[in-house]
Amino acid sequence: MNKYSNKIAITTGDPNGIGAEITIKALNLLNIPPKDIVLISNTKVLNTYGQLNNNYELIEIDYPEKIIPGEIGANAGDFSFQLLKKACEIKPKFIITAPTSKEAMNLAGHKFNGQTEVLEKFLAHDGQKAEMLFVSKDFRILLLTRHCALKDVSKNLNKSIIIEKVERLRSYFQNKLFIKKPSFALCALNPHAGENGLMGDEEEKIIIPAIEAVRNRGINITNPLPADTLFIDGVQKYLRGEKIPYDCYIACYHDQGLIPIKSVASEKTVNMTIGLDIIRTSPSHGTAFDIAGKNIANPESMIEAIKYCLY
Amino acid sequence: MNKYSNKIAITTGDPNGIGAEITIKALNLLNIPPKDIVLISNTKVLNTYGQLNNNYELIEIDYPEKIIPGEIGANAGDFSFQLLKKACEIKPKFIITAPTSKEAMNLAGHKFNGQTEVLEKFLAHDGQKAEMLFVSKDFRILLLTRHCALKDVSKNLNKSIIIEKVERLRSYFQNKLFIKKPSFALCALNPHAGENGLMGDEEEKIIIPAIEAVRNRGINITNPLPADTLFIDGVQKYLRGEKIPYDCYIACYHDQGLIPIKSVASEKTVNMTIGLDIIRTSPSHGTAFDIAGKNIANPESMIEAIKYCLY
Repeated sequence: MNKYSNKIAITTGDPNGIGAEITIKALNLLNIPPKDIVLISNTKVLNTYGQLNNNYELIEIDYPEKIIPGEIGANAGDFSFQLLKKACEIKPKFIITAPTSKEAMNLAGHKFNGQTEVLEKFLAHDGQKAEMLFVSKDFRILLLTRHCALKDVSKNLNKSIIIEKVERLRSYFQNKLFIKKPSFALCALNPHAGENGLMGDEEEKIIIPAIEAVRNRGINITNPLPADTLFIDGVQKYLRGEKIPYDCYIACYHDQGLIPIKSVASEKTVNMTIGLDIIRTSPSHGTAFDIAGKNIANPESMIEAIKYCLY
Repeated sequence: MNKYSNKIAITTGDPNGIGAEITIKALNLLNIPPKDIVLISNTKVLNTYGQLNNNYELIEIDYPEKIIPGEIGANAGDFSFQLLKKACEIKPKFIITAPTSKEAMNLAGHKFNGQTEVLEKFLAHDGQKAEMLFVSKDFRILLLTRHCALKDVSKNLNKSIIIEKVERLRSYFQNKLFIKKPSFALCALNPHAGENGLMGDEEEKIIIPAIEAVRNRGINITNPLPADTLFIDGVQKYLRGEKIPYDCYIACYHDQGLIPIKSVASEKTVNMTIGLDIIRTSPSHGTAFDIAGKNIANPESMIEAIKYCLY
């Protein structure tokens, strides 16, 4: 237990993006009591993008630079990184992260593929790994590979990676959601699940052996199913407000998982990091540099990210 | 002009799949006048799967083999192929194809990736090429690559292929739909459109140069946009019954294009072949061998495929 262990820490992301704006809008709209929240940001950054209605605790991070909405800069990238580092250090109950720019963080020398990887660096212990989950209500999608070029997806998949990720997913359901035997639906990598090897053999060589191994550990998971039809039933049920047929879908790569959930859930999609001691949520969109500073950003995904931690 | 040039030819697909069943169900439900239709099939196959209410002209194709619902066989593959060949020979106004099995056609020695390629072989002239379009109402998606392993998508894309396909798409809109300057939205290949080269460089090396070339020819097309967010607006509008913001989306690969349209339009998705003199439509699902012969197949996609040719 520490001062922050029952609080939600919110980082405002890239100071030249829409992060501070959507944070302020979301907190004002939800009217969250100050006792639940600790902001990790910078007074000048916050004041540039709006005005908070409540008086939240702020952990101030230095940012002497000029704020230039829309600019991708090394200083902004370093600031984004320092926010995350501080959020991990104070060990809150949840971390909510507004969007950062991978490119800006890279310019600052922080070579990470995204915020998920930064959180993993600072929070993982005893072999823990961060996993990326996208969620809207009970529609959930885990990604087996994340931010990598499409042509590298196949080489980034192997049997042990699949087994480990599915195991971590089960642990999340058992330990955080108290679902003892969750049901998982797995997307095939190739169209038509490779059609018996006619279009790619990763299903037979990598994915099915991995599935057999996790089934032997008592995990309830489908065979790799053609992704173009797999989501139909879940999406139709989501749209009717009915229960999704699986506790989680597992996609082989970024767009395969994000296209269905974002297309139907739109701004209600939340990006989650699981597998670490602290659950992190985040809006599912980016820094939106093109509209930064114009006070037109939609806070809906940030609102959903905050709501997830409240209830 | 010939006997069939104002008719719709319907092939019933693999005799061990659900093709004949959904054809019979769809024709009965739509109650189409016999004068508009010519069936290309086999009496025994039709009688195995149902009973037509109207007396349609049938072009009989031999099939002395036993019909075994669910079996993938060379004879069934050859029969499927002969149906397509005949449909091309009679030169109807439209061709509607029930599902075949690529694997069965391959066993019969017909090495095609799908029905689209068979139609191209028999119908293309003067450098014509077939393109695959998926359609539900005004939500349309063209695929730049079709049935290939995911790891081969990148190497199957090059500048001239993109230019040719986009040109053929424009011709279809101009010549068949009478839309003079259609608007196209292009999916990036890589997540986040490669994020300035951080995850894949095909956008910068191949796709953007191709786009610049087609723009120089007067085509209205977006830059390559991150596919996980590109479809949000269109899908939300589709669900509300509003006009889709682009006349056509262009996806780099099978699942990228089919996941969004099938997930929301479900059985209402129609598979079209454009670029040849005869437009072909088809249900967007496969042979469904697992439920063949059980009289439980849903004819909705076949109904949509037929409707497209009627109106």
